[in-house]
Amino acid sequence: MGIAPEVWARVAWSRLAEPGDLEAAQLVRDHGHVGALALLRHCSGGAALTKILARFRPRWQTLHVAGDLVNAAKVGARIIVPNDPQWPTGVNDLAAPPHVLWVRGSADLRAACERSVAIVGARAATMYGEKIASRIAHDVAARGVSVVSGAAYGIDAAAHRGALSADGSTIAVLACSVERAYPAGHRDLLETIAARGLVVSELPPGCAPLRHRFLERNRLIATMTRGTLVVEAGLRSGSRNTARTAGEHLRVVMAVPGPVTSPSSAGCHAMIRDEQAMLVTDADEVMELIGRMGEDAAPQRRGPDRPGDELEPDERRVFDALGARPRTVEELAVITCLSHAQVGALLGRLSLRRRAERVSGGWIRP
Amino acid sequence: MGIAPEVWARVAWSRLAEPGDLEAAQLVRDHGHVGALALLRHCSGGAALTKILARFRPRWQTLHVAGDLVNAAKVGARIIVPNDPQWPTGVNDLAAPPHVLWVRGSADLRAACERSVAIVGARAATMYGEKIASRIAHDVAARGVSVVSGAAYGIDAAAHRGALSADGSTIAVLACSVERAYPAGHRDLLETIAARGLVVSELPPGCAPLRHRFLERNRLIATMTRGTLVVEAGLRSGSRNTARTAGEHLRVVMAVPGPVTSPSSAGCHAMIRDEQAMLVTDADEVMELIGRMGEDAAPQRRGPDRPGDELEPDERRVFDALGARPRTVEELAVITCLSHAQVGALLGRLSLRRRAERVSGGWIRP
Repeated sequence: MGIAPEVWARVAWSRLAEPGDLEAAQLVRDHGHVGALALLRHCSGGAALTKILARFRPRWQTLHVAGDLVNAAKVGARIIVPNDPQWPTGVNDLAAPPHVLWVRGSADLRAACERSVAIVGARAATMYGEKIASRIAHDVAARGVSVVSGAAYGIDAAAHRGALSADGSTIAVLACSVERAYPAGHRDLLETIAARGLVVSELPPGCAPLRHRFLERNRLIATMTRGTLVVEAGLRSGSRNTARTAGEHLRVVMAVPGPVTSPSSAGCHAMIRDEQAMLVTDADEVMELIGRMGEDAAPQRRGPDRPGDELEPDERRVFDALGARPRTVEELAVITCLSHAQVGALLGRLSLRRRAERVSGGWIRP
Repeated sequence: MGIAPEVWARVAWSRLAEPGDLEAAQLVRDHGHVGALALLRHCSGGAALTKILARFRPRWQTLHVAGDLVNAAKVGARIIVPNDPQWPTGVNDLAAPPHVLWVRGSADLRAACERSVAIVGARAATMYGEKIASRIAHDVAARGVSVVSGAAYGIDAAAHRGALSADGSTIAVLACSVERAYPAGHRDLLETIAARGLVVSELPPGCAPLRHRFLERNRLIATMTRGTLVVEAGLRSGSRNTARTAGEHLRVVMAVPGPVTSPSSAGCHAMIRDEQAMLVTDADEVMELIGRMGEDAAPQRRGPDRPGDELEPDERRVFDALGARPRTVEELAVITCLSHAQVGALLGRLSLRRRAERVSGGWIRP
């Protein structure tokens, strides 16, 4: 197949070691992927090393790299390795970065991740959570930000769909291999994402979504992106794990609040309360935190203007004391607790701005 | 009436100066209430002082202290001054503390404030906000905390009613004098609070709730209490002003989140986002922040336990690979990426805890 030994060895290690395996990461850091594979082949080294290598021997017996590559090609998946210009450099921050990424879809993964946000949350989401996830995903995607999530039911799916509805970029990172539809009910959604965005996994073809693989998948989502937004999360939601990893790697962590009566928002509230996440309510606030410096500052929020907003405090006090019934300067002085001279001067200023009017018997509000 | 000159002068100043008047505060700090009144009577002093005194002369003409005291007595109101053991010492932190407090109700104001929280928020509250305000007020009042608020429609009324529903202590601080029912629709509520709690104002009898008096009233609520909780607030709600004052005087500031789609929660979200307020969701979290140190720590929140929670990570990995169909050690080693020896040892530990069972053909999850 003309495949480089380094790439061949990386594919092998993506089969030999589970995602996030720290001992495998140490082996390939110390010896390179090719060197570590040679050690495993000969099972050579001291006692400690031999013990580590013994963990990978059972899988070594079943290794079939060419078969993995053929199976990937059959489903239109390609591989990306760190030297590739499409490698998402953020994952290099991990203690155990992926050996290789298996990717469906034609977009440039690195470019997509350079302006991206993870939007994750509870599978058991409420209509409120799904609506907000979809709305924020739509709004950030419309501004060129890729929405990265895990294709799960609930918040994840709402985030992908929101980005797609804006004709934006979205990336599904799976806890199983890329040719699998998990959950099965999202087969069509995953096909759409593969056609219009990217489906990514560090697992070779044929791998099932085992429980611990979800946590390791989360570390990819957390580090591929500029920040992680948790829309709804119960107290034990896996998305809090994604958020924790994002924070540990100095990514922006954000959470959307919700009704305090909703258990689906309890995890978000706990994260905000414990200062693990910034509270955000819409795409503007997300953009401000993950966007390029200075370019995406959220607009200042303020309520509607009210009559008299532009007045100085003393002007205001006189203005508030004016009504439809005329009042004398003396009456206004008693009401406002200002001297006669002050009231006279303030009435003059107010009348110039048409905020006070002299009539027979005193002053009124025009 | 045998009233002390100091008290007489304080009552006079509560009529002469509007709440929060900084020049009046400076006058009485420099000269004492009696001395400042003597200055005003003779209108003596330098040019700057004369200019200040001129502000109070219009009201001086209308002053009638004995009448104010009689009118207060008619509605069952008493006065409290700083030397009184019932004076709420927190208000002494203000740049312009009240000259006197007019109080209806028999409870000890200082004692009530020593364990108290302000619960304030939007008049235009939602059902959600009123429910939460009432629930938190009920729950803190049931634990002996006085609920202080402003008797307005919406959140304020819900807070007072919640405290009353727990047979707890509640204090209404008014922007008008204590004999007035404002808003008129809360006449019955205010009578109930006066009968079972306290109705408080720094304004002498006959004073209307003028606009600027609400802001000054808020400074009393903010400093009388250990902390201020904002339940719902629009972006321009007056309760944000109460919260700001509480923060400036180093009281705890708290806000309840809500749906990001609700304008009534936008002010709360802005305060949390800008780190002006701590996010709280229930009475436990309020008690932790305002309660006596160490006594009222909120219980640690966690979700429900799940099977296998107690396992170590490697045990967990083997446990997760077990199912109803028997698997051999060799199969489990490939699935888990562990050596045969490790899988064997882990199965032994799991079986001791009844988390793995050896059957014909391999191991299953019991």
